[in-house]
Amino acid sequence: MNDVINLLKSHRSIRKYMQKPVEEDKVKAIIEAAQSASTSSFIQAYTIIRVEDREKRKKIAKLAGEQSYVEECPLFLVFCADLNRHKLACKMNKVEMVEGYTESFITATVDAALAAQNAMVAAESMGLGGVYIGGIRNNPDEVSRLLNIPVNAYPLFGMCLGYPDENPGTKPRLPMDLVLKVDEYTIEGDEERLRAYDEIVKEYYLERTDGKREDTWTGMMAKMMSKVIRPHMKGFLEKQGFRMK
Amino acid sequence: MNDVINLLKSHRSIRKYMQKPVEEDKVKAIIEAAQSASTSSFIQAYTIIRVEDREKRKKIAKLAGEQSYVEECPLFLVFCADLNRHKLACKMNKVEMVEGYTESFITATVDAALAAQNAMVAAESMGLGGVYIGGIRNNPDEVSRLLNIPVNAYPLFGMCLGYPDENPGTKPRLPMDLVLKVDEYTIEGDEERLRAYDEIVKEYYLERTDGKREDTWTGMMAKMMSKVIRPHMKGFLEKQGFRMK
Repeated sequence: MNDVINLLKSHRSIRKYMQKPVEEDKVKAIIEAAQSASTSSFIQAYTIIRVEDREKRKKIAKLAGEQSYVEECPLFLVFCADLNRHKLACKMNKVEMVEGYTESFITATVDAALAAQNAMVAAESMGLGGVYIGGIRNNPDEVSRLLNIPVNAYPLFGMCLGYPDENPGTKPRLPMDLVLKVDEYTIEGDEERLRAYDEIVKEYYLERTDGKREDTWTGMMAKMMSKVIRPHMKGFLEKQGFRMK
Repeated sequence: MNDVINLLKSHRSIRKYMQKPVEEDKVKAIIEAAQSASTSSFIQAYTIIRVEDREKRKKIAKLAGEQSYVEECPLFLVFCADLNRHKLACKMNKVEMVEGYTESFITATVDAALAAQNAMVAAESMGLGGVYIGGIRNNPDEVSRLLNIPVNAYPLFGMCLGYPDENPGTKPRLPMDLVLKVDEYTIEGDEERLRAYDEIVKEYYLERTDGKREDTWTGMMAKMMSKVIRPHMKGFLEKQGFRMK
């Protein structure tokens, strides 16, 4: 279609980086692009923490589940959903902020995600590659302490960026007719579609691992989704002021 | 920097569209780009409903708070966070899906948002413009009924797309030093920065409205955030199976 579409469609996670730093003008362009993303009613409810301190990087790498690239990548950003500037805006205008509703949790979380995706696209457009680090939610409390993240904010995910030192292929996505519905949601026929997709994913892993890995998508999802993942999130978010009223 | 960065930085919401339809190959490219976005552990936990039915459009426009462009835009997409394929994957692999945890709510919501932002960027790269419609969360229950959205899924936002028939300027974002922090979160100095930003936003509205509108950012935020917004979301999400355990 065009170069942008091709760029978007060529996304794959990059976890190995050349030792070359990311130029400061590129860092600036990445953040500006992030800030240009859509934002719910202009609230811009996120903060990005750039972690340069090597000790903190090392600790976060460990807290995120031994993800060494968090330590090694040239640029590491932590995206936080954040309502502190709104609290301050309320104070400056002598009103009280209403806190703890699920809706403002959603708005801030989505705002942070939209900004992050723009950051990723901007980075990739300049020859960089990266990966989201949802693993910081393994130990969000420790990560928050380490980065001094206050109440009314929480670390949603990290993002490693740098010049790629690997060139993995793109991962086959779900067939479009599973994801795109017209006029109403239907699940009819999805099981057959998933079986066909399982074959594609199996092929992908077999080829990528010289026949060693034989995973299917439904198999991986069944394994993952039949376990409790990060049950501490509710308690952590409450502590941060996101009480899901 | 480059054309992609320029494209990202030139984003503004478009709410008026030419009557020209969006070509089917472009719709396909938009969805493919959306699906190419990063996804937490490959879960791809979202469904996009393309609403073509005029009666449904009319109803959603009304439910979203009289947003007529929902009815008028050539292409209207509803992005749903969706764990139904994962439930099916569990069934196909004879295990039970663990349901109702906050973490899977976050994962699915973020996945939907990342996909949507790629869709917006893809659309804009092809000369289209659009706007997110968070307003569908005004009446998420009715929207879900209308689109047959089942348990384990919920409508996060809509997206209007089409060829622009207006050309608004970009909105000035928060100064970067409010949004980007290094090594730790600090709020020190933010009040002064917000006051400076208020002046920029005031200028922007004055200029844009021939001196009629004099809003500041903190003023708008204080007004909005001191009111309860969409308190029904918790109950609605629980009904949809997102119980925030």
